[in-house]
Amino acid sequence: MVPLEFWFDFGSTYSYPAAMRAEELAKAHNVALKWRPFLLGPVMKMHGHSGTPADLPAAKLQYIWRDTDRICTSQGIEFRRPSTFPRSGLLAARVALCGTGTPWEGDFIRAVFHSNFAKDREIADTVVIEEILGTLGLDAKQILAVARSERIKQLLRQRTTAASRWGIFGAPTSLVGQELFWGQDRLEQAFRWAGTSSLVPGSASVRDTRAQ
Amino acid sequence: MVPLEFWFDFGSTYSYPAAMRAEELAKAHNVALKWRPFLLGPVMKMHGHSGTPADLPAAKLQYIWRDTDRICTSQGIEFRRPSTFPRSGLLAARVALCGTGTPWEGDFIRAVFHSNFAKDREIADTVVIEEILGTLGLDAKQILAVARSERIKQLLRQRTTAASRWGIFGAPTSLVGQELFWGQDRLEQAFRWAGTSSLVPGSASVRDTRAQ
Repeated sequence: MVPLEFWFDFGSTYSYPAAMRAEELAKAHNVALKWRPFLLGPVMKMHGHSGTPADLPAAKLQYIWRDTDRICTSQGIEFRRPSTFPRSGLLAARVALCGTGTPWEGDFIRAVFHSNFAKDREIADTVVIEEILGTLGLDAKQILAVARSERIKQLLRQRTTAASRWGIFGAPTSLVGQELFWGQDRLEQAFRWAGTSSLVPGSASVRDTRAQ
Repeated sequence: MVPLEFWFDFGSTYSYPAAMRAEELAKAHNVALKWRPFLLGPVMKMHGHSGTPADLPAAKLQYIWRDTDRICTSQGIEFRRPSTFPRSGLLAARVALCGTGTPWEGDFIRAVFHSNFAKDREIADTVVIEEILGTLGLDAKQILAVARSERIKQLLRQRTTAASRWGIFGAPTSLVGQELFWGQDRLEQAFRWAGTSSLVPGSASVRDTRAQ
């Protein structure tokens, strides 16, 4: 069984609609979903980009908002352009790491995205994250203490290095074996790939040599 | 009837698979297709980009080739990574402009893309373009003379200005009314939009104010 690793940043526009439908798709394709929160900023800087949307051409940024709005409409999810963009996903990513493999992991991730991209709330604020954890019936204080531990900080830093090693340069990115699928619009393709790869042992680890 | 304007550059990787299926999609959706060859380089420079793929992060460029290969495979079209990239589409774009509205327009466009991205031929060479025109049973010398006329050169320059005015920043881009769809992966969506817009008078010209 080849899992699909879903690499995302809580501040990334296109990560939002993809994250909202990832679990449903995983069930439909009978593929194991592994959430991989990471920080896109440091990864983009490693690739020589500023990582600042303000450096994008104005026309492209305008397009991104319009495009996201269309995608969310067709997916039937709420969308409001955040008044701050991009928001730092650092705290939320650390908390998500604490939730790895727990039953609340997916719910927390979706709630943070919803707060940022539907409710225009500041997800870098501890109060907002505490509230989300509380709504999920969790012990916010305890989880936040773990989220601020050296172990979790270290784990998140390792993610940046790993992302770069896998050739990840944007978010969201789906990783199936060694095969990359960049963008929310490649999510279905990535799940199909994972579903098929599971039937052909080893196939997901074969990279086309032309692409090297 | 709202037409779909297909803005493309002959040197652009993702323009290739999109151009190869555009006419079929237009027929299937009963939408008028208008080919819009333009030069992406000057448009990117207008937006403050170098327009040189060499300036892309290595990981992204590697991904683009792999992704294109997967797209072409699933579309059932040949793909070979061009030994020169990007190739100048200047001459081919001028010839395509000469063909606007003629029965050979689509065939010429597809033949140029096939030469560049399947046969690895230098589409900036007059010989290659002459050969393509000859294969289509056309008078290559005569068409090339028109292609090099001041009128056609001027038309192509106007395209750059128009692209920038419409907010186009990449290729391929589908323009339906004032609605932009960037990328080969948005082509089906753009055709659906055009098909639907034709049923709702004026709808394609309404831009979501949030995106302004």
